[in-house]
Amino acid sequence: MNRDREACKSLDASDPLAPVRERFSMPEGTIYLDGNSLGPLPKAVHQTLSAVIQEEWGTDLISSWNRHDWIGLPRKVGEKIAALIGAALGQVVATDSTSINVFKLLSAALKAQNGRRVILSTKENFPTDLYMAEGLSQMLGHGECELRLVKADQVRESLNQEVAVLMLTHVDFRSGRIFDMDGLTKAAHEAGALTLWDLAHSAGAVPVALDAHGADLAVGCGYKYLNGGPGAPAFLYVAARHQASLQQPLAGWMGHASPFEFDTHYQPAPGIERFLCGTPSVLAMRALDAAMDAWSGIDMQEVRKKSVELCELFIRLVEGSTALSELKLASPRDSAVRGSQVSFAHPQGYAIMQALIDAGVIGDFRDPDLMRFGFTPLYTRFVDVWDAVSVLERIVGDGVFRESRFQQRQRVT
Amino acid sequence: MNRDREACKSLDASDPLAPVRERFSMPEGTIYLDGNSLGPLPKAVHQTLSAVIQEEWGTDLISSWNRHDWIGLPRKVGEKIAALIGAALGQVVATDSTSINVFKLLSAALKAQNGRRVILSTKENFPTDLYMAEGLSQMLGHGECELRLVKADQVRESLNQEVAVLMLTHVDFRSGRIFDMDGLTKAAHEAGALTLWDLAHSAGAVPVALDAHGADLAVGCGYKYLNGGPGAPAFLYVAARHQASLQQPLAGWMGHASPFEFDTHYQPAPGIERFLCGTPSVLAMRALDAAMDAWSGIDMQEVRKKSVELCELFIRLVEGSTALSELKLASPRDSAVRGSQVSFAHPQGYAIMQALIDAGVIGDFRDPDLMRFGFTPLYTRFVDVWDAVSVLERIVGDGVFRESRFQQRQRVT
Repeated sequence: MNRDREACKSLDASDPLAPVRERFSMPEGTIYLDGNSLGPLPKAVHQTLSAVIQEEWGTDLISSWNRHDWIGLPRKVGEKIAALIGAALGQVVATDSTSINVFKLLSAALKAQNGRRVILSTKENFPTDLYMAEGLSQMLGHGECELRLVKADQVRESLNQEVAVLMLTHVDFRSGRIFDMDGLTKAAHEAGALTLWDLAHSAGAVPVALDAHGADLAVGCGYKYLNGGPGAPAFLYVAARHQASLQQPLAGWMGHASPFEFDTHYQPAPGIERFLCGTPSVLAMRALDAAMDAWSGIDMQEVRKKSVELCELFIRLVEGSTALSELKLASPRDSAVRGSQVSFAHPQGYAIMQALIDAGVIGDFRDPDLMRFGFTPLYTRFVDVWDAVSVLERIVGDGVFRESRFQQRQRVT
Repeated sequence: MNRDREACKSLDASDPLAPVRERFSMPEGTIYLDGNSLGPLPKAVHQTLSAVIQEEWGTDLISSWNRHDWIGLPRKVGEKIAALIGAALGQVVATDSTSINVFKLLSAALKAQNGRRVILSTKENFPTDLYMAEGLSQMLGHGECELRLVKADQVRESLNQEVAVLMLTHVDFRSGRIFDMDGLTKAAHEAGALTLWDLAHSAGAVPVALDAHGADLAVGCGYKYLNGGPGAPAFLYVAARHQASLQQPLAGWMGHASPFEFDTHYQPAPGIERFLCGTPSVLAMRALDAAMDAWSGIDMQEVRKKSVELCELFIRLVEGSTALSELKLASPRDSAVRGSQVSFAHPQGYAIMQALIDAGVIGDFRDPDLMRFGFTPLYTRFVDVWDAVSVLERIVGDGVFRESRFQQRQRVT
């Protein structure tokens, strides 16, 4: 076993991404495999926010909207994200939450797809995306908007002339399964539908090529693989060809063509800014802005290569352990269709995960029986994978998880 | 003149709120009369956010949602705000932006007011409130929702059986005129309408008695008189009696009865939490949370008393100056119907304000000719008022504002 650990250390020694870990503040004694839920702290954030608070807010006060270009943050941060998801300039803004952005884009798409009333999605989609579609459907009435849920393998055959928009989460939050963005976008377009991709588990996790695949709309999250901090601003993408014709109902002043003229009537901004709404939190925006600089000089193909290697190593070590024979792989075995996470099912998954966390290996649990482990190449080492499996072996092999303190259910985030 | 300044210093010396200024970081050499646009930095915020970033996010990571009760922040911060606006427990949450919250509550109110289609408001209302209503009206169709705008003095007579909801900004952002919340709420109820009050220029500025006046719904801003930082989370109020029957369409997972059960279908939370939507920025929430502690032990009646005195002093000094005879009071003269700001009109108001800012007296300008000065008793001194008028006299009396650099129009926030 120790020879294996030495092999992991060798992999780390030759890993071109290894130095990037220094850009993050990683707590001592913790192996953090939950960056797919909340990314860790990029070191630059603390210093940046101190300056924003003391100098920009504290000293320059209201003049900072111009002097420090607070007003330009949604676009500026959006462009940094755009670089990771294959979007050319002028198509991405950081704004609001993923939920709000889903509502904006679904509303706009439905209105543009006059006569089509169905939002097609999957039962397995992340709940808040479905809730927002449900809220929209209830608001407009079932005759105007129906949320139709099918199984993941029935999406293609369910595309028909009723479908206004196909809403999919690119990488499944439970299993990590990747939808075929290229093929499904083409199929949707052939059926006359628009596509809305949720990139919450894709941006910064796997290479995404929105423009190249002809995607129409996308949303995503700032606090997972982008490391923007808890509840960081989300982002949205609208392909340039759609921007002039799409209008969203959350018509706040930041999306107005001239917000500071205080017109009585709404006039949407000409470009991507029309998808903004109210005043954004500058502190939250600047944290995400600074966090995005941790991506400086990094190639997503390199990230993907290491991500696959980390995941493969984890699967190999777990499946090679007799102590862990009751853990069943719940993610695709084929790395080509698996995101940057691995889930294993076990009837006692909840208790095992509690015991793991107690031992300093942080993953998370999703009902009914999934232990979820995120592998984030910017700061996760090969030796972390080895050590995590070693702890897991001890917890399962020695039955540590049977202690009553691990069996008791707590609120899970 | 100097004797007057001494009198102001005496007022400061006997002001019970004078020590509260120490809770704020005020830049040297600046007289800040724009806290009605962006509140200054409460000293507690910097230290709090450092701890949140380093210890909660950086060290405790994902466990902080429970360990540091991040999940409870919307309610916790909401209750601190509730104490300033006359709302009993369980009716206020800090969440999203004012614009988003207007949309939520207008949608919910319209749906509940089955058969009534009019949102009644004033032409002078803050634009983003009108834009959100306009967006809602376009989304639902004019047959389902009409935004009807009348003059401020025509509100009462315009209440009729078509009106679903009366949406008013309690304190006008330009003039500071206060609407009669008590009387107009009663009149609205007599006509069968609900009320939605925007408290952006009220919360922390004037005493507000939502419960006592029978208000139905309210929204407000965290970054003006509440000093929560640029783009701080906004808040919303829903009277307890309405919560079970109102349902809003922005049905994000934070408003779900059991967000972490990841149900496929939306089930609204039983109480005020059903008006939450997506994941809030914890950094922004904790900044507002810390900022609200600057209100600890402060009585809004005391704040109001000093606010009126500051405003009256400012008006008296401006109107008593021959150099300033061309400035026309654009706020109500009667302090009983004037908020915590004073506006003066002047044809060269833009240039005068630029010159004032250049000289370290920060107010702001609103088209077409309004110079707006906010008087915020927590940190504004009587001597600041005297000094501000003294600078204003020099700028106008000596014609400083005629310099070309002050005439050139810049983007105004």
